[in-house]
Amino acid sequence: MDDRIRAHAETLVDWSARVAPGDDVVVRVAEGAHDLAVAVAAVLGDRGANLLATYGSDEVTRAYLRAHDGDFAPAEAERALYERADVYLSLRGGRNTAATADVPGDVRNAHARAHEDVREARMATDWVSTVHPTRSLAQAAGMSYEAYRDFVYDAVLRDWERLAEEMARLKGILDGGREVRIVADGTDVTLSIDGRTAVNSAASVVYDSHNLPSGEVFTAPVTVDGEVTFDVPVTVQGTRLRDAHLVFEDGEVVDFSARAGEAALADLLDTDDGAKRLGELGIGMNRGITRPTDNVLFDEKMAGTVHLALGRAYDACLPDGETGNSSAVHVDLITRMGEGSRLLVDGDPIQRDGRFRWEDGG
Amino acid sequence: MDDRIRAHAETLVDWSARVAPGDDVVVRVAEGAHDLAVAVAAVLGDRGANLLATYGSDEVTRAYLRAHDGDFAPAEAERALYERADVYLSLRGGRNTAATADVPGDVRNAHARAHEDVREARMATDWVSTVHPTRSLAQAAGMSYEAYRDFVYDAVLRDWERLAEEMARLKGILDGGREVRIVADGTDVTLSIDGRTAVNSAASVVYDSHNLPSGEVFTAPVTVDGEVTFDVPVTVQGTRLRDAHLVFEDGEVVDFSARAGEAALADLLDTDDGAKRLGELGIGMNRGITRPTDNVLFDEKMAGTVHLALGRAYDACLPDGETGNSSAVHVDLITRMGEGSRLLVDGDPIQRDGRFRWEDGG
Repeated sequence: MDDRIRAHAETLVDWSARVAPGDDVVVRVAEGAHDLAVAVAAVLGDRGANLLATYGSDEVTRAYLRAHDGDFAPAEAERALYERADVYLSLRGGRNTAATADVPGDVRNAHARAHEDVREARMATDWVSTVHPTRSLAQAAGMSYEAYRDFVYDAVLRDWERLAEEMARLKGILDGGREVRIVADGTDVTLSIDGRTAVNSAASVVYDSHNLPSGEVFTAPVTVDGEVTFDVPVTVQGTRLRDAHLVFEDGEVVDFSARAGEAALADLLDTDDGAKRLGELGIGMNRGITRPTDNVLFDEKMAGTVHLALGRAYDACLPDGETGNSSAVHVDLITRMGEGSRLLVDGDPIQRDGRFRWEDGG
Repeated sequence: MDDRIRAHAETLVDWSARVAPGDDVVVRVAEGAHDLAVAVAAVLGDRGANLLATYGSDEVTRAYLRAHDGDFAPAEAERALYERADVYLSLRGGRNTAATADVPGDVRNAHARAHEDVREARMATDWVSTVHPTRSLAQAAGMSYEAYRDFVYDAVLRDWERLAEEMARLKGILDGGREVRIVADGTDVTLSIDGRTAVNSAASVVYDSHNLPSGEVFTAPVTVDGEVTFDVPVTVQGTRLRDAHLVFEDGEVVDFSARAGEAALADLLDTDDGAKRLGELGIGMNRGITRPTDNVLFDEKMAGTVHLALGRAYDACLPDGETGNSSAVHVDLITRMGEGSRLLVDGDPIQRDGRFRWEDGG
């Protein structure tokens, strides 16, 4: 077995999920994640945890949902499982990213609604989602299998403790700041963050960060003015969006364009009122991620990028009792902080040319 | 998909497990049983049942158990799952029958003891165990993959309703009878079955029969005298046993020999007092099984065979409050009812030359 698979499993169990002896751990194994499941099982055994593996097969799900009439009964046994479980680890990595493409949307939605209590019970555990590199995901990233494995392990196998400390530094600056200005090629935008709390997303449940890899600091802007060009391509509701350009006034998008996918962008902005406003400002801090792979969970963590999300804000960033931007959507759009770029907090440059001031001894 | 996989899934869900709309069904998927899992999911979806798939991977189990120190905590979440589940379907069929060969026996036993409550909760559901034909199982049977698939589906895809009726006829004869005599090549043995109840093992929970395929009628003999030659080879505790010959007096083995595996047979008989006595007389009724494959779950169901088990008796065969033969073991030994053989109940020939009298219009 590739030593990196063992290291991935150890990072997941120890750093991310903080599994303790006697914990009841449910491990969801996607069709292509067998090798990671074997490594995770060994770590869980060594730590004295209990293990129940579930089979997260897209093909099984597809067959089940396509055959069902959509009138789903409550899933009491499954809910009982997660209500008692301490930890839930989702090992993603399928064999075909389009495996459930022909499941009718109404049945899928009905199933999600009927299983909302199961999802809530699962989210109440110390849950972590990670990705085992499969050929299918390499294909989706436009990469060879070997290169994709290198890519994933570079992103996952970080010195998380050190990165968490570095991100804590940035969180401190944002928590004490009132205004962020981002200047880059085609971008000059000012966001008020007064009173908001940044999240140190360090890929561990103790940071309320549930994805491995992670590596970003994010907050919820109060308002925003200016323009942004998102030069990292993203896929929005199935359509590739390139060089989206948004103009904000008083927190709302007042003009937009895109080199590709402009109609999809228009549809997105039209979803509801909240879709025209920002829910998140995130700053990528994971230096293991050096290129976009059309997978937002990786792309938005890329060091030297900043992302803004149209739509829903996370409660963790808001003062108690305050409601942030609400919307049915939350779509991250990403811009590179390249040569000549600056990120300023209250006028103070925190990052220049994509490098934080402390990286240059500042 | 092979139509037989769909038919297998329908037989399992409808005939064997009697799944009803809204049932919480847990499906254990062995590493090689993916295709059957997809077919079962479609049938469960169509029937309006809930589905939770677990991953029954031998390699995951091996990694977990080898890493564990053997001091297992109670598995409360898993127990809660099975306590609420209505049906448990185990889809066996791995990729390597020796996958857990290097798990230390003491850890395996400690795990089984710590999970006894989980096992009991699972056995309290309407559980059914079946086998998806894999290359690994074909190899273990000494057969090509295609021939093995034909073999398994011939065994599984029976007219179970008709077979259950035929077996009910035999059960009626045994329940009303006092003495069974079996005469075959190297065999002449008389078993008292007075007061015992036969089980119609028709591969359905409504018959308290939990394996698919099944197809046998069995009871618990009170006592036995005579000699038997078991000419169907079986593997006993890892050793191939050929032409085992047992001599019984007053219910107990008083002499034995074997053409191969005699030492293993001696060890088996030496396990405890109950290992020298019979726990079961079974009569194979599945005409889809036409050859032994070194898998007792199939071999003992073969039409034209009879099996006797050394060791533990099943409570279902005993009058209320009566304890049958007890032992740590239950090992089925099988003999062919070939040309010239007879099976008599109270002197009345029920079967001749391996054919029941009603097959010949009697």
